[in-house]
Amino acid sequence: MGLADEQGYVELLMARPASIWWSGERVEDVTSHPATAPAVAAMREVYRLARKGPLAPLLTVGEGDGAYSRQLHVPQSRDDLAKRVEMAEELARQLGTCNYRCVACDALTALSSVTLEMAEDGCGEYCQRLEHFLERARAEDWAISAGLTDPKGDRRLRPGQQPEQYVRVVQRRPDGIVVRGAKLHQSGAVAAHWHLVLPGGALRAGEEEFAVAFAVPRGAPGLSYLVQSEVGRPGGGAPFPPYYAPRHTCWLVFEDVFVPWDEVFLCGEVRWSGPLVSRFARMHRACCGGACKVGFADLVIGAAAALAELSGVAGSPHVRWQLVEMVTLQETWRGCTMAAIYRSQPQPPGGPWLPDQVLSNVAKLNVASGFWRMLALAGDIAGGSVITAPSWKDLCSEPTGRWVRQYMGASGEGRQRLALLHFLRAWVAGDHMVATWHGAGSPAAGRLSLERGVDWEAKKAAVRRLMGCH
Amino acid sequence: MGLADEQGYVELLMARPASIWWSGERVEDVTSHPATAPAVAAMREVYRLARKGPLAPLLTVGEGDGAYSRQLHVPQSRDDLAKRVEMAEELARQLGTCNYRCVACDALTALSSVTLEMAEDGCGEYCQRLEHFLERARAEDWAISAGLTDPKGDRRLRPGQQPEQYVRVVQRRPDGIVVRGAKLHQSGAVAAHWHLVLPGGALRAGEEEFAVAFAVPRGAPGLSYLVQSEVGRPGGGAPFPPYYAPRHTCWLVFEDVFVPWDEVFLCGEVRWSGPLVSRFARMHRACCGGACKVGFADLVIGAAAALAELSGVAGSPHVRWQLVEMVTLQETWRGCTMAAIYRSQPQPPGGPWLPDQVLSNVAKLNVASGFWRMLALAGDIAGGSVITAPSWKDLCSEPTGRWVRQYMGASGEGRQRLALLHFLRAWVAGDHMVATWHGAGSPAAGRLSLERGVDWEAKKAAVRRLMGCH
Amino acid sequence: MGLADEQGYVELLMARPASIWWSGERVEDVTSHPATAPAVAAMREVYRLARKGPLAPLLTVGEGDGAYSRQLHVPQSRDDLAKRVEMAEELARQLGTCNYRCVACDALTALSSVTLEMAEDGCGEYCQRLEHFLERARAEDWAISAGLTDPKGDRRLRPGQQPEQYVRVVQRRPDGIVVRGAKLHQSGAVAAHWHLVLPGGALRAGEEEFAVAFAVPRGAPGLSYLVQSEVGRPGGGAPFPPYYAPRHTCWLVFEDVFVPWDEVFLCGEVRWSGPLVSRFARMHRACCGGACKVGFADLVIGAAAALAELSGVAGSPHVRWQLVEMVTLQETWRGCTMAAIYRSQPQPPGGPWLPDQVLSNVAKLNVASGFWRMLALAGDIAGGSVITAPSWKDLCSEPTGRWVRQYMGASGEGRQRLALLHFLRAWVAGDHMVATWHGAGSPAAGRLSLERGVDWEAKKAAVRRLMGCH
Amino acid sequence: MGLADEQGYVELLMARPASIWWSGERVEDVTSHPATAPAVAAMREVYRLARKGPLAPLLTVGEGDGAYSRQLHVPQSRDDLAKRVEMAEELARQLGTCNYRCVACDALTALSSVTLEMAEDGCGEYCQRLEHFLERARAEDWAISAGLTDPKGDRRLRPGQQPEQYVRVVQRRPDGIVVRGAKLHQSGAVAAHWHLVLPGGALRAGEEEFAVAFAVPRGAPGLSYLVQSEVGRPGGGAPFPPYYAPRHTCWLVFEDVFVPWDEVFLCGEVRWSGPLVSRFARMHRACCGGACKVGFADLVIGAAAALAELSGVAGSPHVRWQLVEMVTLQETWRGCTMAAIYRSQPQPPGGPWLPDQVLSNVAKLNVASGFWRMLALAGDIAGGSVITAPSWKDLCSEPTGRWVRQYMGASGEGRQRLALLHFLRAWVAGDHMVATWHGAGSPAAGRLSLERGVDWEAKKAAVRRLMGCH
Repeated sequence: MGLADEQGYVELLMARPASIWWSGERVEDVTSHPATAPAVAAMREVYRLARKGPLAPLLTVGEGDGAYSRQLHVPQSRDDLAKRVEMAEELARQLGTCNYRCVACDALTALSSVTLEMAEDGCGEYCQRLEHFLERARAEDWAISAGLTDPKGDRRLRPGQQPEQYVRVVQRRPDGIVVRGAKLHQSGAVAAHWHLVLPGGALRAGEEEFAVAFAVPRGAPGLSYLVQSEVGRPGGGAPFPPYYAPRHTCWLVFEDVFVPWDEVFLCGEVRWSGPLVSRFARMHRACCGGACKVGFADLVIGAAAALAELSGVAGSPHVRWQLVEMVTLQETWRGCTMAAIYRSQPQPPGGPWLPDQVLSNVAKLNVASGFWRMLALAGDIAGGSVITAPSWKDLCSEPTGRWVRQYMGASGEGRQRLALLHFLRAWVAGDHMVATWHGAGSPAAGRLSLERGVDWEAKKAAVRRLMGCH
Repeated sequence: MGLADEQGYVELLMARPASIWWSGERVEDVTSHPATAPAVAAMREVYRLARKGPLAPLLTVGEGDGAYSRQLHVPQSRDDLAKRVEMAEELARQLGTCNYRCVACDALTALSSVTLEMAEDGCGEYCQRLEHFLERARAEDWAISAGLTDPKGDRRLRPGQQPEQYVRVVQRRPDGIVVRGAKLHQSGAVAAHWHLVLPGGALRAGEEEFAVAFAVPRGAPGLSYLVQSEVGRPGGGAPFPPYYAPRHTCWLVFEDVFVPWDEVFLCGEVRWSGPLVSRFARMHRACCGGACKVGFADLVIGAAAALAELSGVAGSPHVRWQLVEMVTLQETWRGCTMAAIYRSQPQPPGGPWLPDQVLSNVAKLNVASGFWRMLALAGDIAGGSVITAPSWKDLCSEPTGRWVRQYMGASGEGRQRLALLHFLRAWVAGDHMVATWHGAGSPAAGRLSLERGVDWEAKKAAVRRLMGCH
Repeated sequence: MGLADEQGYVELLMARPASIWWSGERVEDVTSHPATAPAVAAMREVYRLARKGPLAPLLTVGEGDGAYSRQLHVPQSRDDLAKRVEMAEELARQLGTCNYRCVACDALTALSSVTLEMAEDGCGEYCQRLEHFLERARAEDWAISAGLTDPKGDRRLRPGQQPEQYVRVVQRRPDGIVVRGAKLHQSGAVAAHWHLVLPGGALRAGEEEFAVAFAVPRGAPGLSYLVQSEVGRPGGGAPFPPYYAPRHTCWLVFEDVFVPWDEVFLCGEVRWSGPLVSRFARMHRACCGGACKVGFADLVIGAAAALAELSGVAGSPHVRWQLVEMVTLQETWRGCTMAAIYRSQPQPPGGPWLPDQVLSNVAKLNVASGFWRMLALAGDIAGGSVITAPSWKDLCSEPTGRWVRQYMGASGEGRQRLALLHFLRAWVAGDHMVATWHGAGSPAAGRLSLERGVDWEAKKAAVRRLMGCH
Repeated sequence: MGLADEQGYVELLMARPASIWWSGERVEDVTSHPATAPAVAAMREVYRLARKGPLAPLLTVGEGDGAYSRQLHVPQSRDDLAKRVEMAEELARQLGTCNYRCVACDALTALSSVTLEMAEDGCGEYCQRLEHFLERARAEDWAISAGLTDPKGDRRLRPGQQPEQYVRVVQRRPDGIVVRGAKLHQSGAVAAHWHLVLPGGALRAGEEEFAVAFAVPRGAPGLSYLVQSEVGRPGGGAPFPPYYAPRHTCWLVFEDVFVPWDEVFLCGEVRWSGPLVSRFARMHRACCGGACKVGFADLVIGAAAALAELSGVAGSPHVRWQLVEMVTLQETWRGCTMAAIYRSQPQPPGGPWLPDQVLSNVAKLNVASGFWRMLALAGDIAGGSVITAPSWKDLCSEPTGRWVRQYMGASGEGRQRLALLHFLRAWVAGDHMVATWHGAGSPAAGRLSLERGVDWEAKKAAVRRLMGCH
């Protein structure tokens, strides 16, 4: 059976003790420590939603005993890809935070596409290993995180000039490889059973040691997790769900971690590193860069609209104008993402379906700049109280509760207003803006990838043809 | 046979003398007068392209004797609608100007949708008349223009308060109606065989006289055309095709024009005026507001890229950055348009397929602001010479030709550079920016229509659900 | 002696116990409680800077025994006003947070201007009281906060329709008045000796009870402070100065607070409420809306530039382009602020000098939108680590310190890089964006005030003249 | 006498026949030929305004017999510089086009600054010649044009690699030099008595032949003028003043033109070419880049506001919002320009006063992007009729006049509305946008110059100091 319940998810997690660190101290219990609990809670919720309720059909593939999580599925058709994207949007709207299984889903698709092509090229072992890995993952419904970003140190230097800044193979053994290095910005890794690791960029001949992709289980010897400094749940004590928190990230630190060959999916084939990264990016810029933020946007717009109502300004022309601008941004992201699906192609032929390269980058770029704008507009509508509001605890104590009820009480709904302000604060004065800037790759990377995908000659030819070939 | 050739198009045009005016004088021959010739040439080219060459399959519906112009077709499926949109984009890229049959195509679709619903409502005559009209139009391959925009006078007043500012029925006769008023901004009307007229906005009870839609042939008694002030072809004499010119518009002035009942498609049913306008807008904001500008963008980007190459700056980071920004804009428009098709629905069920209301408005809004930005970027890349370049005649005379060759001669291609500058000038210092602002309706109208299409309650509900119903 | 030292400032503060609340509990010692200590530390630093070091001459007026804080000075010349503005910029750059004496400085100037005009109008008592108050304030070098913003409840209602949402006079007694209500968003009030209160908007006949301006000392009976929910110092333990924290605000709650007539500066004269608010806004939009953010911008730009250097990308064209865009924004704010001073006028003649209304609003509006953009750019340059970096405590412990040094160690300066990331995080993922949006009034208020200050007729006349009076 | 009247200006112009070409043909009479008459008319108007009316005091320096045109004056104080800037703004507002004497005024200031420094450096002859030239110019009140822009060919090549693309000295003779090459984009040169020529950029050792600055009289042997392709007056025959037309430019072509030493101001001193260009840019980006467009903005905003009134939409929130955005842009330009003056310094000490480098570039950059936005907004408010309106001749003929009066007649003022539409069309669908982009240098050049003027180290130091020197 391929669909774990929440209990099963947690049990498997607890079965693998891991070296997790936050603020200079070791985290003993990820399910309860404030620095990790929200990520675990989010993951639990994803397992819950996949088994019951209206999202279950979308979150699963197949039926009955053959059913498994769509997060472990590689899109086999345009419709399949559309469901992958819809899943990203729905989970974002449902959770108000990262679902943490998204990156691995796109990494598996990219690995599937590339290893299939490698197999056509005569190198079929990676393909077989990946299939086997996927079977195991589906059978036990593993939560997997995935990561590409190396520290990179001085960006002017190639990996070979500063090897310690990149994950690399330090030893090849008959039974596997030994890897060293770190991956930054790992979303949800502390709450995952397994971790996928891919190279962070295109590599050249001579850089074989860095061309490595593999899977590694939670708590593998030599593997540590260093959680980001700022963690915890927003809301000043408001009874939001335990998973409502900014995206949780950590560093994955590999200090000579052994990976058996069965879980190695690339090792030294530098020329496949570029395609691997770029296909991952096509997937992830459409799903996480694009669709996910369409879901978040509903929450941000909904909160701003609700606050405007409570202040009596919902009918003001400038508030309506701003809400319409917010929706225009949201629907632009949706439009680009949908079009990237519409133009998707299987790669290689018969293989996984991947979104259009140009449109998936365009989705990401519109989101990257538009998300700042949307949050600026939300901050304008919400007013200064979105950062100066008193705590939820103030509402629940006296004499402070009297004041809060009195002065948050427009339309007699001070409680809802305070909740909305704290809800929105997490967006307009928190991590989400930078997270959206850089999630699924920086805008600079997106522009470069876009530039490469454009047929510039066709455009020049169109002018020349019309001008009469001057 | 439903596909006229260029000769047939012109003969039918000349067979109907019309009262056409420009700059205080009457235009006798529309095919040769500089104020009207470019529009006729563009229309001719559209007829030519529909009969041979790579675009022919796209521009026609059906095969053999049953074939007719897609410009006279009402989309019957999502795929049909996608072809409608693709036609708009391809013709824009091919012509570098308006194809002039586009507005009527969308108006016919809106009329078809609304009259079908009226028929379901028990009022079937309009539907039958429209079918009959479409048969005649397809059989003779009529070039049709269409218009909605009344002068409107003081925008604070309703039509009844200033009836002379709106096209209206001044007499109902047993054999038809008599109409009076004017329609502004009529693209290509001087080069059309027939004209469709629709109301310009939603009307209320008591405004029955303005709720009128009808078709009228070129040169109908009482009908005059007043051509816009600035006309003519750009390029300072460069040998561009005769149709390469800004969009051509005129006023249609109705001074008691008689319209037989057979060509009346709405007359007094005020409650259908709103749906008629809004369905037209959905079509036209996706096709003209969106797809058409994707085609134009190829020309603008192509010209800018070619000029950058000739100046040796194509590799400069800031030029590349700007070209990528231009493509990002273009693909954003494409994305929104495609998504509007992806989400299209038949209306009424079984009837014509119409693009999604929200996404078609979003396409228009992105184009409206983005087109200015794209042209600004093109103007930056092209440099001051895009407006200060000497004339093509200077290139062809002496001693001026010597100077032009000398100082336009980066990379030894002065002739091409001069042509590109004049080509681009028509965009960055011409009518296109305002035309794009207001074509397919002003941004303000688009925002309003968008606002109405959004499910605001769903967004607020999403937040409340996540917050735990506070 | 008019210049207190830090010790004097704190002693006077401690001499007045106050009812201060945070998170449902009472704050006993503002100097040490984490919810209030940063504000007190900032205020201390302002006192220190005024007595020694390079800023001392700028921060004081007069010399020797007559010297007093410029924060208690009303500008008497254009040069004086320029120094007022320069003080705002320098303190922002020096503190990296609010200096907390700024609002009162502008409120005193507005009160001085209005009460002088009232005196010319025959109502001289307010003017005398203010003079007397200023003398006392300067003699003891009071730290004063000031506030205008009432809760306002339902924005569609006038104060009289929801009196509890506005500070108002509930009793007039022979010796003074009794006030009730609250002021929101009070910057630094918990660290001030006195508080000024002004009306929040223009009032009409019948709204006399709300037309009240007064001063009230810390800890006055019936006065409470409710501190905002999110407080504390950024940096994950980095050894930043104790005052480096987001702007500190609270609510001031007046539960029947008695104010003797000597400290009442407006009471019932509704027609002066509009000028009072608008003159305060002119001052504050130039000083806080404009100049202060020019100072902050140096820190944000400096941090982004330093981080770019540490990553080796300082020479990348797109990073340079973004840094230049940031400086362009900063210098635009500076330009508008300086021009507002350049065009300043005394009001009334012979009275305080006030910045130009149009330019001071334009400064605020450029800052409001530009600050989001600047922080977006900073977030782009800084990269995802600005939110995902580990804690400073991780740097100082093992084994985490080893990892941090290793992977933050581009150019061998991991410690500086981590500090810069935490420094910048407070800006790109914190309160500053919304604070800048709404500080010195919302953009909507700024636009309205700007609209009123423009001579629209002159612009129309210029066109008509040039067109030849058509 | 230093102030010529209009007659004197024209007589001096006619006294010097010149080789002027347009569209492959020679222009015989610049005062009447449609390709040159508007520029001559603008220049005439500038002479008229300097002698009578409210602007006369501003446009002249000195009094009585010693009076001369401020266009021939080098600013000797901050106040002088402020008047220089005010002159630019007022003339723009008055003429609605270029005043054509502006570039030379800034070039003379740059030459004065640099030759003074060269004199301090022991090379005094240039300084003396310039003084002598200025005396003659002031005595006869010469209209002078000035130019820097070489064709530049392939931008990747240095001048020495493509000498024919730069103005250069081809012969040094005892009595003077012989120059060859061309200058593009020469505003008003056909209407000028003399022309100043400066290098277009910083030169290096080995590029001495290009380091040349000189003055040359109209009609000098070997000197030709090639007028831009598109010329003429806008308005479709509306009775606008004869000078109301887009900025007039031409190429100046030097085919072995002899320049006596007396009129040579730089010849081979490559190290002074950079300062010369950069000081010119500081002047011109404040005056032409900044102040001039503040004047134009009044016309554009005034026309949009007047049209909004005539359509009855002046009170619509979205129109008001847009008008306020236009004013915000305008006042931002004003603010940056004024601040550049406020921070001006004499260079060298005791020499001409020059605007601040950073702020003058910031003024230009804000104008460059903002002018497009302002015209987009104007185009939105004006509506489609701004490009589709019939001709003024239609208004004056029948039956067209009847239609125009009827359908332009909102608020009964069809004549004014038509005039306003044609007035505004010249801006929103004409040369002004590109002209503003590139006038006073491209934005890319402005950014580079800005980058050089910024003290980046000070910003980084401010952060480090605040962080406690980590």
